Amino acid sequence: MDVITREILFNRVRSWMLEAGSFIRHKINDPLIINTKSNPKDLVTEMDRKVEFFFASKIKRHYPEHLLLSEEGYGDKLADTSGTVWIIDPIDGTMNFIHQKQNFAISIGIYEQGVGEIGFIYDVMRNNLFSAMRNNGAYKNDERLPHLDNNKSIHDSIICLNHYWLTENQLVDEKVMQQLIKDVRGTRTYGSAALEFAYVAEGAAEAYITMGLEPWDYAAGKLIVQEVGGVTTNIMGDEVGMLDRTSIVTCNPSIQKTLISYLMKAKK
Amino acid sequence: MDVITREILFNRVRSWMLEAGSFIRHKINDPLIINTKSNPKDLVTEMDRKVEFFFASKIKRHYPEHLLLSEEGYGDKLADTSGTVWIIDPIDGTMNFIHQKQNFAISIGIYEQGVGEIGFIYDVMRNNLFSAMRNNGAYKNDERLPHLDNNKSIHDSIICLNHYWLTENQLVDEKVMQQLIKDVRGTRTYGSAALEFAYVAEGAAEAYITMGLEPWDYAAGKLIVQEVGGVTTNIMGDEVGMLDRTSIVTCNPSIQKTLISYLMKAKK
Repeated sequence: MDVITREILFNRVRSWMLEAGSFIRHKINDPLIINTKSNPKDLVTEMDRKVEFFFASKIKRHYPEHLLLSEEGYGDKLADTSGTVWIIDPIDGTMNFIHQKQNFAISIGIYEQGVGEIGFIYDVMRNNLFSAMRNNGAYKNDERLPHLDNNKSIHDSIICLNHYWLTENQLVDEKVMQQLIKDVRGTRTYGSAALEFAYVAEGAAEAYITMGLEPWDYAAGKLIVQEVGGVTTNIMGDEVGMLDRTSIVTCNPSIQKTLISYLMKAKK
Repeated sequence: MDVITREILFNRVRSWMLEAGSFIRHKINDPLIINTKSNPKDLVTEMDRKVEFFFASKIKRHYPEHLLLSEEGYGDKLADTSGTVWIIDPIDGTMNFIHQKQNFAISIGIYEQGVGEIGFIYDVMRNNLFSAMRNNGAYKNDERLPHLDNNKSIHDSIICLNHYWLTENQLVDEKVMQQLIKDVRGTRTYGSAALEFAYVAEGAAEAYITMGLEPWDYAAGKLIVQEVGGVTTNIMGDEVGMLDRTSIVTCNPSIQKTLISYLMKAKK
């Protein structure tokens, strides 16, 4: 994608995100229609669908040649990552949206031939917009985020992860993970993958690890973290693509090797 | 404490809290002097001490007959809870303060003869002030917080807890806790006891459980949660006093019995 095309697209997406965010804030106290998807903890609301429809309509009208990969059903079926693909989670952190009316985000990544060009994570209720363009740095609102501190050790790191890592599970030996918990400085669980990526990007946490994410959960975050010098892989340290569900480790590069070694040791 | 005395005191504390918060926000990007206390994860900064000194000086000057129970060394040694006692944590969530420059709070509870009269929790960076007076309801800024929903079950609850509950520890059997994690809808870890009390009070989480808190970590929160109909005990369901370190369960009353039964089963 050439620089001018990308900048025009960036500004357009930005204005649509602010518009969607404003809509959500105005409706935040309206009664919710809540449904479950794959299991009782996998929630969806009318708002998820409305926000996705808002973007799907905009894309179809203004960029009919672009493709959409998204969570709530308005997207395209993709066989590969060719072309320009919008990867959208209309509300990341739906449980927070429902229970807390805060701590959720709109996440949009735009990839061309599988390469991340534009990323946005919008913490709607706090009106904090994280953004990045490839090779152009990452921003929190109008402020450029500094490059991540390269001198972190696992012992002075805060790691974001949910509590399932420490219970019996199919992916890893929970005993090794319990040792990791004792070895790091602190742990946090926020319940929104997109926001946890944003926290890693702004240095509020040194890592976020999660067992299974869909591309729309990490498309924007991966680019934003990359633009401050961070790295995103699966738990084996391998690159992740944009078509499949995968485990995710996004982190400050100075702790990556150590963190992956815990996860490799834990892996079943 | 009579109603008028209490209201005058409330307004005075409120203005001091806002002043301290404004001071912290102005200094938030200054370099920090960080020390450790009991262990490498137990951090303290000059800011903790400065904020406590600010309140200690105000109290000594305006209320020389009042007592102060606090974290950083400017307080009094109390043999019992008689008299009017200010219970202060100048920065609750010091690790967040250092690493994130957000997600920390000033916490002040004022107790008379052991009874909570006034409570304040100030989320400084978001400028959200949670407050309560006994029998007078709880507020988030100028908005009264509604009474907690009495129809919650453990299965549709979000529980705040740290990850140590799920590792080998002296207090509880981690296996039982791991089952609890699977039975609730979601879990969160925010790293500030005061803010986790505030989240329970505003219904953003149904419970917060923690293994060991000092009175300054929960004095304000206990009153604020109580004023929306919530309950605070130790993990055995017993009342907690204001003189000793204790485990804490603060929650929506409709899940209290079930939650305590898990904890009793887990208790070593």
